[in-house]
Amino acid sequence: MANLCKKYVIVVCVLVNLALLCLADVKPENLKPSIDVKEEQNVSKHHKTDSLTILMLLALLLLTILTIWFFKYRRFRFVHETGLSMIYGLIVGAIIRYAGPLGKKPDHAKVELINGTFYANSPPETVFLSLPNFNDTSTATIKYNLIGKVYSTEPDGLLERTVTFDPELFFNVMLPIIIFEAGYSMKRRHFFKNLGAIMSYAFIGTTISCFAVGGIMFGLTRLMSIDFSLNDCFFFGAIISATDPVTILAIFNDLNVDVDLYALVFGESVLNDAVAIVLSGSVEKYGELSAGTFDSKAFFGALGNFAAIFTGAFAMGSLMGCITALITKFTKIRDFPLLETALFFLMSYSTFQAAEAASFTGIVAVLFCGITQAHYTYNNLSLESKQRTKQLFELANFLAENFVFLYIGVSVFTFEALKWHAGFIFTAILGIIVGRFLNVYPVSFLLNLGRSNKIKFNFQHMMMFSGLRGAIAFALAIRNTSSDSRQYMVSATVIIVLSTVICCGGLTTPMLQWLQIRVGVDEELDTIQTTDNTRSVSQAISTQRQYSTMGPSDQPTAPTQNQPVCPPIIKHFFFCCTASFLY
Amino acid sequence: MANLCKKYVIVVCVLVNLALLCLADVKPENLKPSIDVKEEQNVSKHHKTDSLTILMLLALLLLTILTIWFFKYRRFRFVHETGLSMIYGLIVGAIIRYAGPLGKKPDHAKVELINGTFYANSPPETVFLSLPNFNDTSTATIKYNLIGKVYSTEPDGLLERTVTFDPELFFNVMLPIIIFEAGYSMKRRHFFKNLGAIMSYAFIGTTISCFAVGGIMFGLTRLMSIDFSLNDCFFFGAIISATDPVTILAIFNDLNVDVDLYALVFGESVLNDAVAIVLSGSVEKYGELSAGTFDSKAFFGALGNFAAIFTGAFAMGSLMGCITALITKFTKIRDFPLLETALFFLMSYSTFQAAEAASFTGIVAVLFCGITQAHYTYNNLSLESKQRTKQLFELANFLAENFVFLYIGVSVFTFEALKWHAGFIFTAILGIIVGRFLNVYPVSFLLNLGRSNKIKFNFQHMMMFSGLRGAIAFALAIRNTSSDSRQYMVSATVIIVLSTVICCGGLTTPMLQWLQIRVGVDEELDTIQTTDNTRSVSQAISTQRQYSTMGPSDQPTAPTQNQPVCPPIIKHFFFCCTASFLY
Repeated sequence: MANLCKKYVIVVCVLVNLALLCLADVKPENLKPSIDVKEEQNVSKHHKTDSLTILMLLALLLLTILTIWFFKYRRFRFVHETGLSMIYGLIVGAIIRYAGPLGKKPDHAKVELINGTFYANSPPETVFLSLPNFNDTSTATIKYNLIGKVYSTEPDGLLERTVTFDPELFFNVMLPIIIFEAGYSMKRRHFFKNLGAIMSYAFIGTTISCFAVGGIMFGLTRLMSIDFSLNDCFFFGAIISATDPVTILAIFNDLNVDVDLYALVFGESVLNDAVAIVLSGSVEKYGELSAGTFDSKAFFGALGNFAAIFTGAFAMGSLMGCITALITKFTKIRDFPLLETALFFLMSYSTFQAAEAASFTGIVAVLFCGITQAHYTYNNLSLESKQRTKQLFELANFLAENFVFLYIGVSVFTFEALKWHAGFIFTAILGIIVGRFLNVYPVSFLLNLGRSNKIKFNFQHMMMFSGLRGAIAFALAIRNTSSDSRQYMVSATVIIVLSTVICCGGLTTPMLQWLQIRVGVDEELDTIQTTDNTRSVSQAISTQRQYSTMGPSDQPTAPTQNQPVCPPIIKHFFFCCTASFLY
Repeated sequence: MANLCKKYVIVVCVLVNLALLCLADVKPENLKPSIDVKEEQNVSKHHKTDSLTILMLLALLLLTILTIWFFKYRRFRFVHETGLSMIYGLIVGAIIRYAGPLGKKPDHAKVELINGTFYANSPPETVFLSLPNFNDTSTATIKYNLIGKVYSTEPDGLLERTVTFDPELFFNVMLPIIIFEAGYSMKRRHFFKNLGAIMSYAFIGTTISCFAVGGIMFGLTRLMSIDFSLNDCFFFGAIISATDPVTILAIFNDLNVDVDLYALVFGESVLNDAVAIVLSGSVEKYGELSAGTFDSKAFFGALGNFAAIFTGAFAMGSLMGCITALITKFTKIRDFPLLETALFFLMSYSTFQAAEAASFTGIVAVLFCGITQAHYTYNNLSLESKQRTKQLFELANFLAENFVFLYIGVSVFTFEALKWHAGFIFTAILGIIVGRFLNVYPVSFLLNLGRSNKIKFNFQHMMMFSGLRGAIAFALAIRNTSSDSRQYMVSATVIIVLSTVICCGGLTTPMLQWLQIRVGVDEELDTIQTTDNTRSVSQAISTQRQYSTMGPSDQPTAPTQNQPVCPPIIKHFFFCCTASFLY
């Protein structure tokens, strides 16, 4: 019975369809394909290329994950996941570049302006081209959007074009995730304990490094036949001063290395990214303000710019974090964990975009937002949201980081605006070694004058060794490649990132042994032991207890709700502000 | 002491910097701003506009979340979050459109081909324009990429342009998330129990609806003075047949409505999205194959295309799900939950992209992938990954859904390629009502002939009422707006989505009362009661136990590891394949 009626349904259906189509057959003139078939094919072709590209990147990420698992399973430590992503990216980039059939060229044409010249002082954003319609005699207007200045009218392949690193994607999506996670999952106890040292390395050290690299580049590029101005030198110094020791930090974490060393390396790398971004912006600003000679007005303008951007971003990040804390505290949104997590996520991401829109630096804002969220908002969240936010950002950070390094690897071969110059690259490598040296040792020496818990020499050597360059340097370099000097910078940055991540990353474990840095440190025990000589054990334990319910880096225990929010906020503001200026 | 040395550091630093800058002052000719300032400003302007747009959308989402929370808190049910997103989007879209200062026009120019005509049969992908450099006497080559055919050379504002719905973003990012979550969180017990009915509604009913709408459109547009071919009519019929009762399902969930009704409405909506996508592709294929008259070869070609795409996508989705299950079973990746979750996420997203790249339909593949992942892989995951995947996709789905409806609202005012025609819109509304009628009642009648558990009339009325149109219909309509007829379709689709989501969504609760559909049904109890007349209670309970550890829709209890994977996979394949063809 059931089968019978189902067959009946199918037969009726087919008949109805056929009848409708036959009815249509009466007026054949109405069946002409009015849908613009070419346009349709174009859309579909683009969609398929996009899918193929994304699929390729996904397959690479999957391969990386399985290899990482295998390495972890076998306890290999000589290469980190980011290094692995980059190596896989390099291989695939080379295949795309040199394999003919994949890189089919899209068709192109040269055009000229109809009315002769265009009178604005920059190229038009949009151009309109009239072409005859391919079906009838009318003409169609086709719209084209500005991509940028190019140096060859030989267009790149379809796959090459879509696979090339997009700095906007990196700065708007990947970077906020990576930096927020750094702030949110930070071991804040040791970070704040070493805040003075971290700030000194990040602010003073990075500035020294920037000027040292800039000076060396300026001196040695005079001997070469390339056009590289002083402003370019300092710009390069700024972008290459952002360290990214993610490889080394992962090994530190696995081996439970000394907590103070971890805090110093981690804290410096987080803050110096922010410093490098703001500094490179200030150098550009200086280049715009000064008309060609040294201009003290422009210099102090750039200095003021630096201070304003940093302070503004810090204030905005902390403020947004506090607003989230207040909303989660005073509404009952806790009863709906999904809404709560969404709110948390959107507020954090808004911080980034708000800072960018206000011309502050999103990365600094989102870093302080992350710290504030972990410090205050985290305690107001429901248990489910605590776990959810922690896990969500952990996963997002993992994927974003690997994706970025993969992309760096692929871009080496597919990005067209690279100019290679061996002398420039060697000068740059020399520059970063000298810059790192002038950053770590003099600042450590001065810091040790005032510290009771001295920074030992083996720690200093390890910090020197941890000066890896990564995603930020690459993204800052690739953001604008409109001039020759910028293209030299990109190629040098790529080589520096590749070599430091693969070499220094791979040599971390031997280096730790060679420098006799103790590993397998129990964090809790360590706090008691190191503070032992200044206060009693009971005091140390009470301090420890005070901190131990503070953030997402600890295991979620009983929820500590209804903690007072306003007084600590003021304290926190005061603490951070005073710490940054006084220590 | 500490303070003294810090001051010393700062003084030294400033001196070094000044010295370096003064050194630079010796050779002023090297300080000329070689960085391409215009290009830099251009990049920075775009970045700021992007940030502003994203910030605005984020602020709207935040507003929606807070309003939802308030409504949930006060137990208002007359408007769902998606409706709310759309309303907020409408308001902001209107502001962007009619507020002058926000929509500053970018500069533009008209161009022509240098060598006269372009001989390919579609517009060039890339054009190159030579412009004089703004600094010196050389010329720069500027690259422009194809956007598409336009109907006015009046460019839209900067904000309008970035705020307009991007179908690629929707199809590549939002849609896979929404559909995967539907498959992954599906209450599979009731879905499979009603599989026959769901398939009948989705396949036969949607086809009826498509042809009914197409027929009505064809008949009535002959009376109007617009150019709308038969093929266009059926294409419109196909895209508008995808229902999206997310609003109604949310209310069903809140009120614990009858589980069979829920399964029917939910199952139909998930599958008919897939059917509508494949069907619209087939209608286009038919339009390409048939040269103007009814062509039986083209008709069966389109039919074969439909079957091949559907089967291929189903096979690919299930296969990828099974591969993930096997990987998670036979590797010890379970020990690293982060890697495991990343693997799960990437495999699921790869399914979508692999299907798209192979010219199947990603949405069908990802749906069956979701079902397979829930059925097999879920049991192999570690406890942490179970929670993490469940929560991650829940959050992503929530954000994606609200974002899409927000975008629909904004696009009503900012999307330029809309042609309004009152007669067309009324015809379309009449068409969808008749189409829905011919879908629900005849199919239900035929199904009831063979069902022991009849589909009651009030259920049928509720299904008729649940024919809301949403994101899929909108995205399919907006994907290609190159011809006049396509622009009529977009405007009609927008009006239908707006009116059904707001009206039907708002009237669900009164409608449930009016139709006397029982709410507050306890799912577990219900299963026992309804199966009571055909088998014993003990049998029912054992069936229930068999299902109760099956998927993420249940609470995570003890992990049931090492369950045999291969035999159930084969059973599942056999079950699904036979079910789709035999039942």
